[in-house]
Amino acid sequence: MSPPTNEIFQFSIISALMSGLASESSSIPISTLLAHGSLGMGTFASMDGEMVILDSIAYQFHADGSIDLCPPTQLVPFALITPFQPSLQTSIALPNKASLSKSLDRLFPEAKNAFVIFKAEGVFRRVKIRAIHKQRFEGEKLDVLAREQAVRTLENVRGTVVGFRSPAWSVGVSVVGVHAHFVDEGRKVGGHVLEIEAEDGTEITFEGSVSGSFRLELPQSKEFGEKELDLDVLGIEKAEG
Amino acid sequence: MSPPTNEIFQFSIISALMSGLASESSSIPISTLLAHGSLGMGTFASMDGEMVILDSIAYQFHADGSIDLCPPTQLVPFALITPFQPSLQTSIALPNKASLSKSLDRLFPEAKNAFVIFKAEGVFRRVKIRAIHKQRFEGEKLDVLAREQAVRTLENVRGTVVGFRSPAWSVGVSVVGVHAHFVDEGRKVGGHVLEIEAEDGTEITFEGSVSGSFRLELPQSKEFGEKELDLDVLGIEKAEG
Repeated sequence: MSPPTNEIFQFSIISALMSGLASESSSIPISTLLAHGSLGMGTFASMDGEMVILDSIAYQFHADGSIDLCPPTQLVPFALITPFQPSLQTSIALPNKASLSKSLDRLFPEAKNAFVIFKAEGVFRRVKIRAIHKQRFEGEKLDVLAREQAVRTLENVRGTVVGFRSPAWSVGVSVVGVHAHFVDEGRKVGGHVLEIEAEDGTEITFEGSVSGSFRLELPQSKEFGEKELDLDVLGIEKAEG
Repeated sequence: MSPPTNEIFQFSIISALMSGLASESSSIPISTLLAHGSLGMGTFASMDGEMVILDSIAYQFHADGSIDLCPPTQLVPFALITPFQPSLQTSIALPNKASLSKSLDRLFPEAKNAFVIFKAEGVFRRVKIRAIHKQRFEGEKLDVLAREQAVRTLENVRGTVVGFRSPAWSVGVSVVGVHAHFVDEGRKVGGHVLEIEAEDGTEITFEGSVSGSFRLELPQSKEFGEKELDLDVLGIEKAEG
């Protein structure tokens, strides 16, 4: 059975990822994830890079700049995905990442406590993206890896931003605020969006929807069941904001 | 289609209830809730009393001590429910409410970050229950209502405790720790469990299961979408712990 339109399916919780939980035993195959939607983001076992799911195709962007198309068995310790059907299509200016947040407030004024799913396509003057290096040992924490992330700046690039905005009450569960990943038009470069800007007067195609349906599946591993999780709000903002 | 065994379906979030959001426009009919399981708890529109769902039957315990069987159209602003299938059946001593929590730790040692669903049946020497008075005005907050709750102490009563234990990361979403409601054998008296004890040597029949599947549905009302929620951890513990 297909999941309901715009229902967000999430595997694991951000506080588990922050705490370093990204082993194969705490993961699901990406084929399981892809049964729940067409648009998404996340990471891979051992936090090996950044995931973008666009039109039901999953891309893995490694820190060394290489990219993989994911086989169905690829393991995923944290991700969210949705069968995206935009309720709103428009175009927006996008002078910087903060303006994206303001556009969401304006376009969805009654979604303060719900999720917002969006996709933004166009030519960007500058996109600063990062990809996480793979854990050097099991359990290495995300905030450490985020400090050593590989950062790339793309210029005058056409591509797509995939994003989720999560409400304040979801702290510990999701990345509160805007969490966006980018993939270029050729599907060769991508990662977690740190900064993004379109030229003055350049309109970006925007599609979005509010979601009030959130389905969470937790890892069934012993390590997840026993772990003392870091419920560290500031750490999550720093690593994933 | 039936929901997966022990998947918890929750409507709305505890921080919305704490913030006073319990209007009809932020509710769903109980028939919708009952499609997601057989065992549950919650409250009713305007926070009018305490809900227990046992064997797919929903009971409404008012603060004045009266009880209603709920018609399918009865409106629910906050509840959780599951198609409960215990993975463990045993008997436990239950000298006090804190011991319940310790029993859950012992019986489910690998469930620190997951949910635990349980049912405990037997004869209790003492059960102290409360029921909330209905809001006097729309938006009246739960912590105010909890201060004025109607408390009853039952003695030597046979009945059933319905309970959920929610993990620390679910703060703002659910009641962290053990949240239990009680209903007596005759289905005439019940409410939110404040204290509970069985006589020394009396064994209580216990059924429980871990759940790693949590499906959240948010109210679609304008008031929910615009409300500044109290993300007040201590307040929730005080009102619902």
